[in-house]
Amino acid sequence: MYSFLNDYSEGAHPLVLDALIHTNSEQTVGYGCDVYCQKAKEVILKRIQNQNADVHFLVGGTQTNMTFISYVLRDYQAVIASDEGHINVHETGSIEATGHKVITKPHQEGKITVEMIQALLSEHTDEHMVQPVMVYISQTTELGSYYTLKELQTLYAFTREKGLYLFLDGARLGSSLVLEDAPNMAEIAANVDAFYIGGTKMGAMFGEALVIINDNLKKDFRFQMKQKGAMLAKGRLLGVQFYALLKDSLYEDIGRHENEMAMIIKQAFEEKGYSLYVPSFTNQIFVDLDSNIIQAIEKEFMVTHIKKINEKKERIRIVTSWATPVEEATKFAELIRTL
Amino acid sequence: MYSFLNDYSEGAHPLVLDALIHTNSEQTVGYGCDVYCQKAKEVILKRIQNQNADVHFLVGGTQTNMTFISYVLRDYQAVIASDEGHINVHETGSIEATGHKVITKPHQEGKITVEMIQALLSEHTDEHMVQPVMVYISQTTELGSYYTLKELQTLYAFTREKGLYLFLDGARLGSSLVLEDAPNMAEIAANVDAFYIGGTKMGAMFGEALVIINDNLKKDFRFQMKQKGAMLAKGRLLGVQFYALLKDSLYEDIGRHENEMAMIIKQAFEEKGYSLYVPSFTNQIFVDLDSNIIQAIEKEFMVTHIKKINEKKERIRIVTSWATPVEEATKFAELIRTL
Amino acid sequence: MYSFLNDYSEGAHPLVLDALIHTNSEQTVGYGCDVYCQKAKEVILKRIQNQNADVHFLVGGTQTNMTFISYVLRDYQAVIASDEGHINVHETGSIEATGHKVITKPHQEGKITVEMIQALLSEHTDEHMVQPVMVYISQTTELGSYYTLKELQTLYAFTREKGLYLFLDGARLGSSLVLEDAPNMAEIAANVDAFYIGGTKMGAMFGEALVIINDNLKKDFRFQMKQKGAMLAKGRLLGVQFYALLKDSLYEDIGRHENEMAMIIKQAFEEKGYSLYVPSFTNQIFVDLDSNIIQAIEKEFMVTHIKKINEKKERIRIVTSWATPVEEATKFAELIRTL
Amino acid sequence: MYSFLNDYSEGAHPLVLDALIHTNSEQTVGYGCDVYCQKAKEVILKRIQNQNADVHFLVGGTQTNMTFISYVLRDYQAVIASDEGHINVHETGSIEATGHKVITKPHQEGKITVEMIQALLSEHTDEHMVQPVMVYISQTTELGSYYTLKELQTLYAFTREKGLYLFLDGARLGSSLVLEDAPNMAEIAANVDAFYIGGTKMGAMFGEALVIINDNLKKDFRFQMKQKGAMLAKGRLLGVQFYALLKDSLYEDIGRHENEMAMIIKQAFEEKGYSLYVPSFTNQIFVDLDSNIIQAIEKEFMVTHIKKINEKKERIRIVTSWATPVEEATKFAELIRTL
Repeated sequence: MYSFLNDYSEGAHPLVLDALIHTNSEQTVGYGCDVYCQKAKEVILKRIQNQNADVHFLVGGTQTNMTFISYVLRDYQAVIASDEGHINVHETGSIEATGHKVITKPHQEGKITVEMIQALLSEHTDEHMVQPVMVYISQTTELGSYYTLKELQTLYAFTREKGLYLFLDGARLGSSLVLEDAPNMAEIAANVDAFYIGGTKMGAMFGEALVIINDNLKKDFRFQMKQKGAMLAKGRLLGVQFYALLKDSLYEDIGRHENEMAMIIKQAFEEKGYSLYVPSFTNQIFVDLDSNIIQAIEKEFMVTHIKKINEKKERIRIVTSWATPVEEATKFAELIRTL
Repeated sequence: MYSFLNDYSEGAHPLVLDALIHTNSEQTVGYGCDVYCQKAKEVILKRIQNQNADVHFLVGGTQTNMTFISYVLRDYQAVIASDEGHINVHETGSIEATGHKVITKPHQEGKITVEMIQALLSEHTDEHMVQPVMVYISQTTELGSYYTLKELQTLYAFTREKGLYLFLDGARLGSSLVLEDAPNMAEIAANVDAFYIGGTKMGAMFGEALVIINDNLKKDFRFQMKQKGAMLAKGRLLGVQFYALLKDSLYEDIGRHENEMAMIIKQAFEEKGYSLYVPSFTNQIFVDLDSNIIQAIEKEFMVTHIKKINEKKERIRIVTSWATPVEEATKFAELIRTL
Repeated sequence: MYSFLNDYSEGAHPLVLDALIHTNSEQTVGYGCDVYCQKAKEVILKRIQNQNADVHFLVGGTQTNMTFISYVLRDYQAVIASDEGHINVHETGSIEATGHKVITKPHQEGKITVEMIQALLSEHTDEHMVQPVMVYISQTTELGSYYTLKELQTLYAFTREKGLYLFLDGARLGSSLVLEDAPNMAEIAANVDAFYIGGTKMGAMFGEALVIINDNLKKDFRFQMKQKGAMLAKGRLLGVQFYALLKDSLYEDIGRHENEMAMIIKQAFEEKGYSLYVPSFTNQIFVDLDSNIIQAIEKEFMVTHIKKINEKKERIRIVTSWATPVEEATKFAELIRTL
Repeated sequence: MYSFLNDYSEGAHPLVLDALIHTNSEQTVGYGCDVYCQKAKEVILKRIQNQNADVHFLVGGTQTNMTFISYVLRDYQAVIASDEGHINVHETGSIEATGHKVITKPHQEGKITVEMIQALLSEHTDEHMVQPVMVYISQTTELGSYYTLKELQTLYAFTREKGLYLFLDGARLGSSLVLEDAPNMAEIAANVDAFYIGGTKMGAMFGEALVIINDNLKKDFRFQMKQKGAMLAKGRLLGVQFYALLKDSLYEDIGRHENEMAMIIKQAFEEKGYSLYVPSFTNQIFVDLDSNIIQAIEKEFMVTHIKKINEKKERIRIVTSWATPVEEATKFAELIRTL
């Protein structure tokens, strides 16, 4: 049965796998100090048009969030997220495990707004409360929406004004890069203090590339990585993969494909009059459906149950990936139209 | 200018101070292993009608909450509180600093309900989320309300059924003990897994007496205390004070006095048609007032500004204590009536 | 220039890589709940002759140590290691970062003895000190030595008697499995509370297989993994690799090969009268050499500088791996003989 | 039976107690923002001849060490101590509980030397190890010895050169202030980055006054205090006590008295030919005695057993305090002479 459960159901994109195969027998030094990590770093610096950024390669998303956020915050400081932020709900308290509170407001279509941040700042005023110093956002968001360039610029102008750092979790970054009004990689780099380029959910076997723009957040970060178990011995595996993904347009090609597959499905829902929970132009679709419709879908496809909405309706999630065949997306859309 | 800012504006109740003076020159062993801590413990065990409980004396409330909650929780476990819970907003992330998430729902008149707990349990279902194992409540609550015996029994029945621990923060416990439908100390002990008897806000110079009922939560707790900086060298100071507070009815007398002082003030507000933010029968009163009224009050008394409600109104807090003279409470009430 | 720097200079053993290639396009569920992790687990349970053990797959060694040790210890508890233990010196304080002290005594040929443990127990007697509850050992040790079956049995008998857990870090386990008087995998499982089967340094691309024997250390461990960033999204990559390594004798074949390559080099040192820092029969050789000899070696090979011994001498480390060609080991040995 | 167990066996020095009594009924604001804390701070700034220092009042020694050291260190950084340092052995891993490793070398007469620090720096060279950034010393030391002004200057010159912070734990500071070649308070302040003036062991009921000299270590420290449970609600109790201790010469008078009492006892040991474990001119005496002699002592006095030295000998500790009567010290000395 074909799975739309997530975008990490398969191994690596064939071109990424090839790169791993072709470099497998070479000897390199460990821990990310090898020539492949260097090459991947150079490609990233060129893409972001900033030769001064630091680039580090880590293995997974929770690990990257936890390692970097705990690095930035002093003991009594907190990170701001939306209530649906990945760090708030789906990382088993990994931020808190490093000693820090995640403070939240309810999301606006999956996103954080200036008003939400301002409200949290107003509520945290003295030493009896944590001190907010960083805002965490995701591109694309956990609900499939995305920040336009303009929205990102607005957020960054505000966070700079307030002395906050802005950190963008790009686990599914590629999916946004191909959207017209979304920021490209250089625009992102110009409007955050740090961000990461997701690999795991974008065709890599595993891996995330953390890009640190703000000079204040760079010193001795490798110590933090090692301590948090986030420094891969065979670090070159990460360099090889990111070089393969980013040297040409593979990363964007993957993003475009998965969006297209999702739009095939979305269109079918819209034709049938089902509106999505949050408007989506990316590879995640959340929709509230009657149980009998979900049952019909699940005779042919695997999807994720998110939440019971009421007696009859449940919210499900459909995720497409680099590996989703047009045939399966089309089959899914056709099924919807028959229900 | 007389202060209604809080219930820890003065030193110790004269009878507590006397006890400290009279024992000052005696030599005892340190760290709570002395005869006064033993006597205070015996008085507490008698009051709770449970010879099997463990009693530990700590210095302050944040310290007691942080030391005990971090002791109970495994790394990936969380504590449930209301959004107004003291551990959630007024302890600078001390629980998170020990590695644990505080998960919340909006309070119901300052209190937690079975429905709130159930909702949080339903949202935390697998290993990608923290695991709730403890419910934290305060008696009286941070907003001046209190749990009746029946409410406490309901909560405890539910937490036991769900395998959760129930922990009651009694920073202002005395204020509730004298209310007719509120649990007495033995009834509390029979309906929680642990609680603490507040000293700092109840007439002691400082100190909180943690009472652990559940056998699962007892082993090696002194190690935790020492590690968290919560084991006072001259531990007997705590024993001396709690023995003075609890051997007769001093603790309840203090609670009764501060409630009576608060009711004098509350009545004046009610006569003037100001309704309290949350119904209160204890020593804390929260009321939303026009700015000009607050200004008039603050020409004669100190009160705490809690929150801007709208353009014109602000919420203030008035707290009475063992030391509040009838004259000042009466003067305050009369002032209200003139505004 | 050929590198003897470590046993993770290359990618994966060809048979492991093949397994990854052949399963790459399959869809599986994430986070280690897939069929390949299941198969790998079954192979491990069969090898250890214990159907009751829990098996978890993690990405790296520091991560595995940190995740498991922090899971086992309560806040005030400590782990015992030798002063050369990997967790004590080469993991950037990752155990302390989870809140726990590592207490040590000087190693005996890289190993821990009953006397060392007893001395630490005698020094930690009350609640003003941490409470030792676990002993951490490595097989093979950080210095290339190993525990015989008899030594392991002695340690385990002692730790059980004292109520301590015994945890064996098997980052280089394969190297010991082929030594006559060393424990095989079933004997290890019968004489520890938990251990891990190293992949990263034994021919896998990455990965470590944690095997938990003691029932007390099993509950909810997946929560801990997720929180510490140690749950790989594409978990099946780990299952695929460990199944390839362990289904037949590949794991032992790799261990045998790397030991043989090391013995070729060791023999040359011994013929020249250089004695090793610690007797080694495994793939790591530590030897103190004059600087001019080290310089001569480094014209042809890469080795690790460990420590300055005195004005003239320095300690170096030579490590062989599954990938070390006989030709390079022989060339190295011949070079030694000429110096 | 008279106790020489420690210097916190009694309550407060009568003059300190008087100050608490006389201010007991006054209303002040909480958390150390009151007039008494202000007055105590002014006295301290005058004594250290530095108007720019920050002063904070905490409750106990372990708490002060843990709160300040964890504030200074980034996640991957470590503090250097002697193996006998209080933070290393007698605080139940409180520093590690905040995430940081304590790295040590064996003490030299209870003290740390430049050579010890240099050795630790040489051993910690890259991101696989913790990064030492602070040196922790105690005045007087845990073994009763003390740093001369010259020794302190040498240490501070070295730590500044190496970019390390120097922190002095002054739990028993008063005992050193009256020794001729030891630094006075202004000299200490000029030769450390931070230090604390001990109260608990120097005649206060409780309390330690942390003095921060280095501007880099000041920002937002009150947040850290609150989070660690180290901000006393009735903070003025600390201000009142330190003002009483420091406004005149009471603090030094106490130090002088306890030293004199110890010297009476020390002389008796020396006359009998018992040499102290570490030379002491302060209020702690460590001496190795035959068991039968210890038994004879313990018929009349309480002393602390430190360590078994061999079959026959054990190390004991005798501590004098502000409260030790000349008669008891003399009686003890006479007893020694008869054994």
